[in-house]
Amino acid sequence: MELSSRITGLTGGGSDGWDLFIRARKMIAAGQKITELTIGEHDIRTHPDILEAMRASAAAGKTGYSLVPGSQSLRETIAARVQARTGIATTADNVLVTPGGQSALFATHSAVCDPGDTALYCAPNYATYPGTIRGVGAIAKVIQTRPENAFQPQFSEIDALAPGAKSLLVNSPNNPTGVVYSAETMDAIAEACLKHDLWLISDEVYDTQVWEGTHISPRTLPDMAERTLVIGSMSKSHAMTGSRIGWIVGPQAAISRLISLATHTTYGVAGFIQDAAEYALKRGTELEQEISAPFLRRREIAKRVLNGQNVLQAVPSTGAMYLMLDIRATGMTGEAFGNALLDTHAIAVMPGESFGLAAAGHIRVAMTVEDSAFEAAMIQLVDFAKGLAA
Amino acid sequence: MELSSRITGLTGGGSDGWDLFIRARKMIAAGQKITELTIGEHDIRTHPDILEAMRASAAAGKTGYSLVPGSQSLRETIAARVQARTGIATTADNVLVTPGGQSALFATHSAVCDPGDTALYCAPNYATYPGTIRGVGAIAKVIQTRPENAFQPQFSEIDALAPGAKSLLVNSPNNPTGVVYSAETMDAIAEACLKHDLWLISDEVYDTQVWEGTHISPRTLPDMAERTLVIGSMSKSHAMTGSRIGWIVGPQAAISRLISLATHTTYGVAGFIQDAAEYALKRGTELEQEISAPFLRRREIAKRVLNGQNVLQAVPSTGAMYLMLDIRATGMTGEAFGNALLDTHAIAVMPGESFGLAAAGHIRVAMTVEDSAFEAAMIQLVDFAKGLAA
Repeated sequence: MELSSRITGLTGGGSDGWDLFIRARKMIAAGQKITELTIGEHDIRTHPDILEAMRASAAAGKTGYSLVPGSQSLRETIAARVQARTGIATTADNVLVTPGGQSALFATHSAVCDPGDTALYCAPNYATYPGTIRGVGAIAKVIQTRPENAFQPQFSEIDALAPGAKSLLVNSPNNPTGVVYSAETMDAIAEACLKHDLWLISDEVYDTQVWEGTHISPRTLPDMAERTLVIGSMSKSHAMTGSRIGWIVGPQAAISRLISLATHTTYGVAGFIQDAAEYALKRGTELEQEISAPFLRRREIAKRVLNGQNVLQAVPSTGAMYLMLDIRATGMTGEAFGNALLDTHAIAVMPGESFGLAAAGHIRVAMTVEDSAFEAAMIQLVDFAKGLAA
Repeated sequence: MELSSRITGLTGGGSDGWDLFIRARKMIAAGQKITELTIGEHDIRTHPDILEAMRASAAAGKTGYSLVPGSQSLRETIAARVQARTGIATTADNVLVTPGGQSALFATHSAVCDPGDTALYCAPNYATYPGTIRGVGAIAKVIQTRPENAFQPQFSEIDALAPGAKSLLVNSPNNPTGVVYSAETMDAIAEACLKHDLWLISDEVYDTQVWEGTHISPRTLPDMAERTLVIGSMSKSHAMTGSRIGWIVGPQAAISRLISLATHTTYGVAGFIQDAAEYALKRGTELEQEISAPFLRRREIAKRVLNGQNVLQAVPSTGAMYLMLDIRATGMTGEAFGNALLDTHAIAVMPGESFGLAAAGHIRVAMTVEDSAFEAAMIQLVDFAKGLAA
């Protein structure tokens, strides 16, 4: 009567990367004032208009079982948005609505990996990636990207690990680095997938947070639509993290199987949440820009604060709600730096190590408190680092 | 670049059991008037007071990430309810909140079965059971219960299949039969689990729908709490099917691992839905009785209509929102009978075969339309069966 080794081995035996975050939350619960720059969550709540759409839907009776794939109108709305943003023909049949992006990560890996298969992902990475792969009984293999390449994976790095693998998971705009993959990087990813017959799982949940240049969805590249499963979410684009609604976009045959899987894993998403999401998406890009604007502002604040010092090096990033800072000049690990910063200045950031060895000696700063508090925290953080380096 | 055999083999190669249901839904979409007695969904919507609790929670700002295990207060509320109903000490640490009962079925099987392990379930069964087991990469083995035992599994039947298995899934009050397992049956189940070192997964989502006698949770039996994972849900007890909220109750060590799994599969449940569920549970048993009352009334209606004929034999059931009728005297299969009834009388019921071979030659009638329409449909159904048998 043991638990499965799948579940006991989920975190790979080590920390799940959330230790500092949990410590900060406990300090807050104990009454301490902590500036929390840890997780990727807006400092605003879901827009009242979206909540009103949800309320109206529930009041109108949308409280029973919904269709497992998602409502036809939401699937069409998502398809239209994807097509408008990428230029690739997309219909409702290419879309499965899921209870959040994490659920979509799990479902896509279930769909392409059998137990014992190898699934690749690029580090530094969102903390759940390897556990998600292990959770479906597959073997997680990590492609270590490098700070000197601005954490963009290189063809040779993928090519070296790809033989025999089933899938590759990429994330651009990237959490935790804020890096948006270049056209060259996306071409390299596509080339490797075609060469090694890999499924590509493309986590694009930060697609509305691009501050310079453009985000390229690899599904748009030649021959890639048939082997790419794109993960989207309302969490970051519409500050609907708590509503747990996202989607998978992919080839119709795969989506059809994923619907059957969803019947057995989630049985769909609340109809009133789907209606709220549809309303939000139909508000168009103006609302999305309003929601992403604070991160662009804070990015400029951070640039200003970081200017004229060289202890902290910012990773050259152009997207998402994070700053990745190289703190190696302080002589500390990201973990030690993060813990010391929490203890001495009551500022919580994520150690780079939480996102994999590739980001060792870095910290991730989520730009998720209001501008003046963010600026004050950044100034303290820089002073703290300077003191350590001196 | 094939999909995984896990996902392509999810339904075991055959029908997923929903064909007639889907056909009925298509007829309705095409404008036909169908009396739908197919799925386990109330003819009422979620109570306005519960929706108001949800609205108030969202408006108060509960729209961000919630804690993955569920809020402390909801977990405590669920624990208190379970303890009050069963007498077994239960705390928040024994509870994981899940996005619905189906998600709990998937998570519990993930937690106890590794790929290739054998998981047992009893037929007739809710349609998703075998696919859920296959979805975690395990082997689904079915214990065929028998009409002559009122579909209650016997010790010898479990004992014969249990060697080498990891888990047993039972469901009382039972969908599709409406049978509530007797004390003797529950003892036999416990004996088999202890003898063969099985995890017991006890799906108790119909625990508020018991019309005679009592429902025994097997977690209460000697030495069973440490090996039993109970699945609960707000769907049936509170007409919250669309809200997708349920739970797992089990030993703290297993719940702790299941929380880690949830971090990788769902990342929690919407906070405003959790608050709505907590409000509903705190309303106590009166609201639950109000919601279950129609099924008890309709059960009496069905008894009256079935009285004085012997073509249709009702399975002796005392719970849930279903009637299971033996239609073998008509000479038809459940599938043929169901399709003919739909074509000739525009009444949709589920073929017994949708729930496994054990229920072949039966139909399941969901008592989920208002009383007079239900009575009219039952009269037509009986007349149709009589005509076939004549």
